[in-house]
Amino acid sequence: MADLRLLLLSNSTNAGEPYLGYSIGEIGRFLGSDDLAPLFIPYAAEMVSYDDYEAIAAGPFASVGQTLTSVHHAADPVVAVAAARAIVIGGGNSFRLLRQLQQQRILGPIGDVVRRGAPYVGWSAGSNVACPTIRTTNDMPIVEPAGFAALAFVPIQINPHYVSNVIPGHAGETRDGRIAEFLHANPDQVVIGLREGTMLRVEGARATIVGARPARVFRHDSAPVEIEPGSDLYQIVRSAPRG
Amino acid sequence: MADLRLLLLSNSTNAGEPYLGYSIGEIGRFLGSDDLAPLFIPYAAEMVSYDDYEAIAAGPFASVGQTLTSVHHAADPVVAVAAARAIVIGGGNSFRLLRQLQQQRILGPIGDVVRRGAPYVGWSAGSNVACPTIRTTNDMPIVEPAGFAALAFVPIQINPHYVSNVIPGHAGETRDGRIAEFLHANPDQVVIGLREGTMLRVEGARATIVGARPARVFRHDSAPVEIEPGSDLYQIVRSAPRG
Repeated sequence: MADLRLLLLSNSTNAGEPYLGYSIGEIGRFLGSDDLAPLFIPYAAEMVSYDDYEAIAAGPFASVGQTLTSVHHAADPVVAVAAARAIVIGGGNSFRLLRQLQQQRILGPIGDVVRRGAPYVGWSAGSNVACPTIRTTNDMPIVEPAGFAALAFVPIQINPHYVSNVIPGHAGETRDGRIAEFLHANPDQVVIGLREGTMLRVEGARATIVGARPARVFRHDSAPVEIEPGSDLYQIVRSAPRG
Repeated sequence: MADLRLLLLSNSTNAGEPYLGYSIGEIGRFLGSDDLAPLFIPYAAEMVSYDDYEAIAAGPFASVGQTLTSVHHAADPVVAVAAARAIVIGGGNSFRLLRQLQQQRILGPIGDVVRRGAPYVGWSAGSNVACPTIRTTNDMPIVEPAGFAALAFVPIQINPHYVSNVIPGHAGETRDGRIAEFLHANPDQVVIGLREGTMLRVEGARATIVGARPARVFRHDSAPVEIEPGSDLYQIVRSAPRG
């Protein structure tokens, strides 16, 4: 097994910026100067067509010398995944994405090529499915997947679009409340709240926060901890006392 | 089959009010002057014990002459449900609630007693499970139920805690965006956004919004419609043009 290489983004795009605006520079550095012709997985998209989603994502990738092609053009998605030199999974709805990955039978093949060293880029739902399960998604369960287990590239659960603000006067639970519920039900898990505009870059045993804001790490019965950009998340998670 | 009698609340409690404060008067009128000794289903609770949840809910019910007893005291939950003269399902996490209903094998028995005429009161997750599925919940999928199908007492999907406000500067999708995604994936469905402080009272073929604010009805490829309190939701849904 080669070293895992992952770039997991909280979100594609910050409010008011062009698509992948904050992240495409880092994506370019992560993928390197050779065009790896990354295979794009558009299955999270519910409200746009796969053709349109491919066109939206391909522009920024072209600007860093990477030719994105969507798997939905492939006669056999399993063959396309097995031949891919890089995998890119876009955001949308995590339940829809996972169900499509299951139905197209490419969860296992994506796991194989990434574990053999193909770099993986995901944003939002594409970061959720890099985790052991999609149980820390923010999405509505608009369709029913055959189980919540996902790619398990990282041993932690990412909460993308992490935000601690609340809507004033609203009694529905907050994001922190949802994460606390998850950890109460799953006390052995670690959740990392990835704020918008930030990402987690994994290279082998090292996992680094990239971006202008810290990430927030949540564990059961412990106070949350802020992890500054550049810090090694895995080391901090491993060394932190359990509460 | 008797007429269905349901009181489905958006939320237990408005911000800053006592538990069930806005709703207990309506609950009392709905259940009537006889003490039906309603059976309380506390399974949505993740962060409080069943004993504590029962105590929290029992107070307001006692104030309207109803003696609430939680199913978790019963030696056999199936027997307790079959003997119940009223069912009350409290809020919490919808995925946890549905999984517990499945594991305790009381989904079918609750359906039976309510379809024979026992009144049903639910709030938040307890309103989600009264729908055909829990696919319009706002909750995080902290645990994995064996499928999303629920009690199907109503032919519509409720979105509880419905709110159209957004957090400024946040790029994550809005509530309206989530509901639009659901309807795009499930174009034959109708979603009713129940704002906090409002409820849906169903008596046979009549479904009325109760509370100080309208409900918002969403259908695929139609503009949302506001339904004023007192209006018959079913009649409006049936008569509205599609598309």
